[in-house]
Amino acid sequence: MTTIQDIADRLGVTKGTVSKALNGASDVSETLQKQILETAVEMGYTRLRRSKNAPPRLCILAAYRNIEYKEPHQFGYEIVLGFRQMAEPAGYQVDIVPVDEEFQRQVSYDVFMLQNSYQGAFVIGFSLNDPWMRDFETSRTPAVLYDNRVSANPSTAYVGVDNDEGMALAVTHLKKLGHRKIGYLSSALGSYIMQVRHKAFFQAMRQNGLKADSACAGTSFYVSQCLDRHLPHFLEEGMTAIICSHDLMAQSILVRCQEMGVRVPEDVSVIGFDDLPVCPYTSPPLTTLRQNRIQLGKSGYYALDSLMNGVSIGTLLLHTELIQRHSTAAPNADKK
Amino acid sequence: MTTIQDIADRLGVTKGTVSKALNGASDVSETLQKQILETAVEMGYTRLRRSKNAPPRLCILAAYRNIEYKEPHQFGYEIVLGFRQMAEPAGYQVDIVPVDEEFQRQVSYDVFMLQNSYQGAFVIGFSLNDPWMRDFETSRTPAVLYDNRVSANPSTAYVGVDNDEGMALAVTHLKKLGHRKIGYLSSALGSYIMQVRHKAFFQAMRQNGLKADSACAGTSFYVSQCLDRHLPHFLEEGMTAIICSHDLMAQSILVRCQEMGVRVPEDVSVIGFDDLPVCPYTSPPLTTLRQNRIQLGKSGYYALDSLMNGVSIGTLLLHTELIQRHSTAAPNADKK
Repeated sequence: MTTIQDIADRLGVTKGTVSKALNGASDVSETLQKQILETAVEMGYTRLRRSKNAPPRLCILAAYRNIEYKEPHQFGYEIVLGFRQMAEPAGYQVDIVPVDEEFQRQVSYDVFMLQNSYQGAFVIGFSLNDPWMRDFETSRTPAVLYDNRVSANPSTAYVGVDNDEGMALAVTHLKKLGHRKIGYLSSALGSYIMQVRHKAFFQAMRQNGLKADSACAGTSFYVSQCLDRHLPHFLEEGMTAIICSHDLMAQSILVRCQEMGVRVPEDVSVIGFDDLPVCPYTSPPLTTLRQNRIQLGKSGYYALDSLMNGVSIGTLLLHTELIQRHSTAAPNADKK
Repeated sequence: MTTIQDIADRLGVTKGTVSKALNGASDVSETLQKQILETAVEMGYTRLRRSKNAPPRLCILAAYRNIEYKEPHQFGYEIVLGFRQMAEPAGYQVDIVPVDEEFQRQVSYDVFMLQNSYQGAFVIGFSLNDPWMRDFETSRTPAVLYDNRVSANPSTAYVGVDNDEGMALAVTHLKKLGHRKIGYLSSALGSYIMQVRHKAFFQAMRQNGLKADSACAGTSFYVSQCLDRHLPHFLEEGMTAIICSHDLMAQSILVRCQEMGVRVPEDVSVIGFDDLPVCPYTSPPLTTLRQNRIQLGKSGYYALDSLMNGVSIGTLLLHTELIQRHSTAAPNADKK
């Protein structure tokens, strides 16, 4: 195991200087501190001196502006709660750390974790552009990524729901109702999970023997833009059902259809993804695929605990569940 | 919750008859007992009367003749061990039940579990032909399938290693050594996992920018037949490396090459899959992809425990690890 002496020897500084740098003392220059921290990470030094009474620490890294978790109606709330419900009784202090791209560019993931004595991280809301996504490919500090996958790093795991299964449930449900022309509307494909669901939609259509070419799917960065561009076109093309990449998109369709005088589900069926707390209260109540977020948070802790104990979990996916409400029905039921 | 009275009412028999049938009393006819058990399963009755002191029971269902687990050198030994290492300290009695196709045809999975008061099963060694594979699509008694996947049943989970990642590690390793023409030899594709690895090989080749058409892969039911058919052909075609679906295939190649005067790794590199205990002792010691079987067994218990507690795990995959020994080297290193 790497000691403070090893780091001092490598850099030709005293043990005291290394110790000070690792503990953030102000009389070590910033440049030297950075060098010492990066060398410590490189050499696999992971244990910081800690007061004996301080509990071990984990963090939830939340991509700033990209995931909301403070209020019960927000997507991330139960994910954070589920994680804490497991981690805190196990004796961990859990800090929630919002991180933006600027912050990630200033310090590497491993160095940040070492500096703050965090033993592992649960990472939520990151997009493919987040600088630390590169770090996770080779990082050594255990990290569990919610809805993001990094291949072949034994210190990193991916936790989420089985999106292939979810899309298959949605398409099968619509096919049973009698739908054949089904469209898919999605946020821009800048996140791993949006790419996965996009692919899963086409796969589910193929498996159900339904036609789906690129004209069946529309994506845009902004929800309103996505609806402007694709919704009228989808309806003109005679699509009788639309599956959405996430509930917010589906809810916006419900509102837009009302404005356009298009009835849901009589004229078009709509399915969301996630089952946000608001879904039973939309007009009409939204049929959607449930991600059990409490269980996702708990699974995140389980995977992190496993990685910290040398059990190299790579992927942990939960089943989704189709929650059937009133935004789906047989196509044109009242016209016949 | 369904009671014995509910079952009695449905069938028009007395409560005593239902109770006797559920407990296997000999004075209920076989036909009636079967009907009562099947109705109990259909109605979701899951708790059998049990002596208060008897521990709760789990079973490991092992496909007869298809997986060996009794000796430390056998593939299933550590999987069973890892499962028991978690389940028994948690208070469960764990029975290992060998099941063949004939047995599966006589009784459905749910009925078997109910009859024997098993709360959940860890299922190992099943092929796609095993009759209970159909049962697992709709069964209600928690089941964790090692190396088999059933979609969209919330009571069933799939545990294994990430084969896509494993194949990518193998192909990347060979490419770095300088190999371009790589072949793949596999058992017949009658098991889920053989299909997954077969597909993963072609995917890994594509991702590495290497050519792989159907002539690059050979499959046969018997290992010796597979070698007879494909090995000489692979060598004539100038393939410098062969990846195998499992270690037994790779070990057989080592022996066959020795007989043919073909040197490993000088003339051809060979990679296995699994890292069986024998791999360090083959001649030469085999480079292979490790499945950590103790951890797989433990993960199997974790997934089963989760399902029994209403946490709907669908998929749990462990990272594989490339174990580099002496059966791989740069191609034709000594000829240049």
